[in-house]
Amino acid sequence: MRSDARRNQARILAAAREVFAAQGIEAPLAEVARQAGVGIATLFRRFPTREALIAAVFGARMTAYADAVDVALADPDPWRAFCGYIETICAMQAEDRGFTDVLTMTFPGAEALECDRTRAYDGLVTLIRRAQEAGRLRADFVPEDLVLVLMANAGVVTATGDAAPDAWRRVVAYLLQSFRADGAEPLPAPPSPRGIYRAMLRAKRRC
Amino acid sequence: MRSDARRNQARILAAAREVFAAQGIEAPLAEVARQAGVGIATLFRRFPTREALIAAVFGARMTAYADAVDVALADPDPWRAFCGYIETICAMQAEDRGFTDVLTMTFPGAEALECDRTRAYDGLVTLIRRAQEAGRLRADFVPEDLVLVLMANAGVVTATGDAAPDAWRRVVAYLLQSFRADGAEPLPAPPSPRGIYRAMLRAKRRC
Repeated sequence: MRSDARRNQARILAAAREVFAAQGIEAPLAEVARQAGVGIATLFRRFPTREALIAAVFGARMTAYADAVDVALADPDPWRAFCGYIETICAMQAEDRGFTDVLTMTFPGAEALECDRTRAYDGLVTLIRRAQEAGRLRADFVPEDLVLVLMANAGVVTATGDAAPDAWRRVVAYLLQSFRADGAEPLPAPPSPRGIYRAMLRAKRRC
Repeated sequence: MRSDARRNQARILAAAREVFAAQGIEAPLAEVARQAGVGIATLFRRFPTREALIAAVFGARMTAYADAVDVALADPDPWRAFCGYIETICAMQAEDRGFTDVLTMTFPGAEALECDRTRAYDGLVTLIRRAQEAGRLRADFVPEDLVLVLMANAGVVTATGDAAPDAWRRVVAYLLQSFRADGAEPLPAPPSPRGIYRAMLRAKRRC
C-alpha cells in the first residue's frame, strides 16, 4: 500500500472509531469520511462494506477480549481465575480506550464480532459457575454485573487519566472483595439482560 | 426580568455548564456566549464577572452537596451515616448530571464554591473517622476513595441511562459492602490527594 493510502486508512479507522462510539455502528459512513477528511469513494475503496469497516475497527480488540477468557478458564483455581479475568479486562480497558467500545457496545449484524462476543460470554458464564460452585463467588453475581464493572471502570479511567493512572486498580480491588461469598449481604436487583442490552445499544458518548 | 432576558439567562447557564465541564472553568467566556447564541455584551450584562457565572451554574448544587453531609452527621449510627451519605450523593449524581461537575471538579478562585466544598470535605472526614472508630469502616478507606466512587458511579449512570436507570444502585451497594471492616483484604494504594486534585483539575469530557 502506498503511504498516502496507508495514511488514509489510518484516518478512516480513527474517525470510524470516534463516530461509531458516539453514534453507534449504524452511523452514516458519510460522516466517517467527513471526519477522516477523505471522500466517500475513498472510504468504500478501502472498506467495501460497513461490516468490513466495523471488523477492522473492533475485530482485533474483540478477539483479544475473547482470548482473555480462555486464559482464565485454564486456571485450575476458580476464584483466582474469576478475579484474574476481571483484572485483565479492566487493565485492557485502562490501556486502550477502544476496548471500552467493544466491551460495552453490541454489534448486531457483525457476525465475526458477535461470534467472539458469544465466546467471551459463554466463557464468563463458566467462570462464574465454577467460582460459585467453589463457594468463593457470591451466589447472586450475574453476567450483567461484569458489564456494570466495566462501565464503572470506564468512568474512573476517563476521569483520572494520567493524573492518577492506577486509581482504577483500587476500585476494581474493592469490587472484587464485594463479590466474595463470605459476608455477602443482599443487593438491589441487577439490571435485566434486556436492560443491559439496551444500554449497550444506546448511542453513547465516549465515557 | 423580561421573558427574552430570562431565556437568554437560561441559555447562558446551559452553555456555561457545557463549556466549563468540557474545558474547565477557565474556558473563554466568548465561547460560552457563542454556544448560548448571545453576544458577549449580553453575557456580561447578566453575569458581570466569571465568578458570578460560575456561582450561578454550580452554586446551588454545591450547597446541596455540602448540606447532605450535615444530614449524615446528624445520624447517631456511624456506619448507617456513612453508607447513607454515599448513597445520597450517588443518587444526586444519577438524577442530575450537573452534580458530577461539582463533585469531581475543583473551582480554584471561586470562594463560595470552595467554602461549601471545604464544609463537605470536613464533614466527610468526620463521617469516615466515626465509622472507622466504630469498627465498621475499613481502616484503609481514605477521602480520595469517595471521589473514585463518584467517578465510577458517573461511568455507570452515563452508560446505562434510561435503559437501566437503577443499575448504579447495585454498583454502589457492592462498593459499600467492600468498605466494611470485617473481612477487609489488602488493596492497591489509593491515589494521592495531589493526584486526585490533578484529576479534578483536568479539563474533562463530560462523563
